[in-house]
Amino acid sequence: MREVAIVAAGMTPFGELWDMSLRRLFAEAALEVVKKAGVDHLDSIYVGNMSGGCFVGQEHLGPLMADQIGMAGVPSTRVESACASGGIALRTAFFEVASGASDLVLASGVEKMNDGADATNVLATAADQELEVYHGITFPGLYAMIARAHMAAHGTTEEDMSWVSVKNHRHGALNPKAQFPLEFTLEQVMNSTPVAEPLRLLHCSPVSDGAAAVLLCPLDQAKKYTDQPIKILGTGQATSAMALADRKDPTFLDSVQLSAERAYTMAGVRPGDIDVAEVHDCFAIAEICCIEALGLIEKGQAAGAAAAGLTALGGRIPVNTSGGLKSKGHPVGATGIAQAIEIFEQLRGEAGKRQVQGARLGLAQNMGGSGASSVVHILERT
Amino acid sequence: MREVAIVAAGMTPFGELWDMSLRRLFAEAALEVVKKAGVDHLDSIYVGNMSGGCFVGQEHLGPLMADQIGMAGVPSTRVESACASGGIALRTAFFEVASGASDLVLASGVEKMNDGADATNVLATAADQELEVYHGITFPGLYAMIARAHMAAHGTTEEDMSWVSVKNHRHGALNPKAQFPLEFTLEQVMNSTPVAEPLRLLHCSPVSDGAAAVLLCPLDQAKKYTDQPIKILGTGQATSAMALADRKDPTFLDSVQLSAERAYTMAGVRPGDIDVAEVHDCFAIAEICCIEALGLIEKGQAAGAAAAGLTALGGRIPVNTSGGLKSKGHPVGATGIAQAIEIFEQLRGEAGKRQVQGARLGLAQNMGGSGASSVVHILERT
Repeated sequence: MREVAIVAAGMTPFGELWDMSLRRLFAEAALEVVKKAGVDHLDSIYVGNMSGGCFVGQEHLGPLMADQIGMAGVPSTRVESACASGGIALRTAFFEVASGASDLVLASGVEKMNDGADATNVLATAADQELEVYHGITFPGLYAMIARAHMAAHGTTEEDMSWVSVKNHRHGALNPKAQFPLEFTLEQVMNSTPVAEPLRLLHCSPVSDGAAAVLLCPLDQAKKYTDQPIKILGTGQATSAMALADRKDPTFLDSVQLSAERAYTMAGVRPGDIDVAEVHDCFAIAEICCIEALGLIEKGQAAGAAAAGLTALGGRIPVNTSGGLKSKGHPVGATGIAQAIEIFEQLRGEAGKRQVQGARLGLAQNMGGSGASSVVHILERT
Repeated sequence: MREVAIVAAGMTPFGELWDMSLRRLFAEAALEVVKKAGVDHLDSIYVGNMSGGCFVGQEHLGPLMADQIGMAGVPSTRVESACASGGIALRTAFFEVASGASDLVLASGVEKMNDGADATNVLATAADQELEVYHGITFPGLYAMIARAHMAAHGTTEEDMSWVSVKNHRHGALNPKAQFPLEFTLEQVMNSTPVAEPLRLLHCSPVSDGAAAVLLCPLDQAKKYTDQPIKILGTGQATSAMALADRKDPTFLDSVQLSAERAYTMAGVRPGDIDVAEVHDCFAIAEICCIEALGLIEKGQAAGAAAAGLTALGGRIPVNTSGGLKSKGHPVGATGIAQAIEIFEQLRGEAGKRQVQGARLGLAQNMGGSGASSVVHILERT
């Protein structure tokens, strides 16, 4: 298997971008990458997208997006794993380069969620239609049940969850691409509107439009395109039972643990080696579950990690320096690529006020549904 | 890059299967493969599916389908390229095995089109939403325009197109899995109900439910699972302008030619070496365009090929011995895998009354939309 590097990144701001269509969002991110890398062609394109069909009536994004950037002809494929679609695009692009079949592969993600569709109902297509959605539940409700169970089993509090939001908004306030680059106090989070108790508005990631893209090539060709290639050291993917009720322990995200184990093994590193991580905080409780399943925080300490400053900038293991899904925004198909871009910039020392000094090894974890799918990438400064 | 083989295949009958859900269709095909190969695990799963979201309100098919066959945990990814989703699943699975990352990868496709959704409108999400669908056109209309342009430019007749349907139904009548295993006379085809002139009902593939799956592994391990592995000798993918109006010549499917060239080059073979082919006859005119773009029939002779018997069983290059999309049925996400299964069985000498004697090299060509995406695989008897 060939070694693979990321050599360039591009992304739109995330937000309610009423003047930007699905195709324009993609084109802006993709052409930024093409320009930065100085390439005149691509060998292949992967587009992570959760539901162009349900959001804006457009499937078949592979050829559409190649066409939009003047590259009709180039193989171009849409991949989907709900909110983990971006991470999956990175992984499938990795395999195509690693196999030797292609040299220059664009891994991208895009979602246009604000265009009239009922986002909550469209997102619910990522849950089990027969066992969950048919009976009326949507994602805030599923994650509220995870939160309640976590509180009952582990003594987690609303304050613990609220500190996750406070921390991620502090980080996001330093990110010019973030949808909500503003800080909130603990009191503001804890007194925000209830959505699905115990989850409140400021525990939930927003509905967002956006696109992100990175260029992959064989590591031994990377210096042609950048002085600072970032190596993809490991990739891991896993699934879990689709319906929350079918899992042994709803508070433990086994797909996250399994995907991380696979990525750590491939990379030959341990959780303690990671310097900076982006994890899937679609709801505040999700970050708590993820950092424990990833092994970034010891079992039993995850709930209090944000309050204790362990996961903040300057803490032991900074998590979601980009602002995370909570502050940066969560255009679902783009999120996994945007996470990889934050790690890419951190490892290149380009994260500005969000920079984790001396970061050498970073992790990005992207999740679908209530954790039925998870994909982890480990990136390394070369 | 490692050499890759197909070692087992499974598929449901195709048809209006009102008692079979999306997940059950998948499970039936996938478990048939697992049983035939005698494996107790899979390393990874790819699910080709065009629009679970719009057809039955279910995205996130990767983890759902892994869970359905008792394999929660296994990495499982849905890929989409409209009606070429199955072929793309085969290609992405190929890369994962070829890269060395995984040994046992299931490539599958599934679609549940008969469950209340308006199939014509859902299928239209594969066309350009802004330039085509918004203005009211759907696929029968797009292919009718291709047919009219073909008639004007090349003198193709309604009779030429009708012979394609007659031939494919003759083949399909020999296929126990076909949705419409019945023969029609030329007169019946030419007098069938107009759908979008010059296309009539019997020039159009049906709306179908179904699933198909194949197991891939490294060629050097294949004998553990079967006495007769079939090697994937070449894979090629290409895109074209999304909107028909944006193509230089609407009668020439450049994505088909380009994807075929890439597959021929990788395989080191020429069109004349192919013994049997499955091509994407979603409408009768599509088969005519495809066999020309694939180089299976000389330029200018494609329209009359079915009438002349060139593409029939016993002819120079038998095309769509399975009955094709027209007779076998077209559950869009499953079609590309079903095509590969027909070639797999032909090369193993298992095609029964449809057998092409001595077939050594076969081709499967799967297409999305009005030809905006195309993927070609070349398989070889080992």
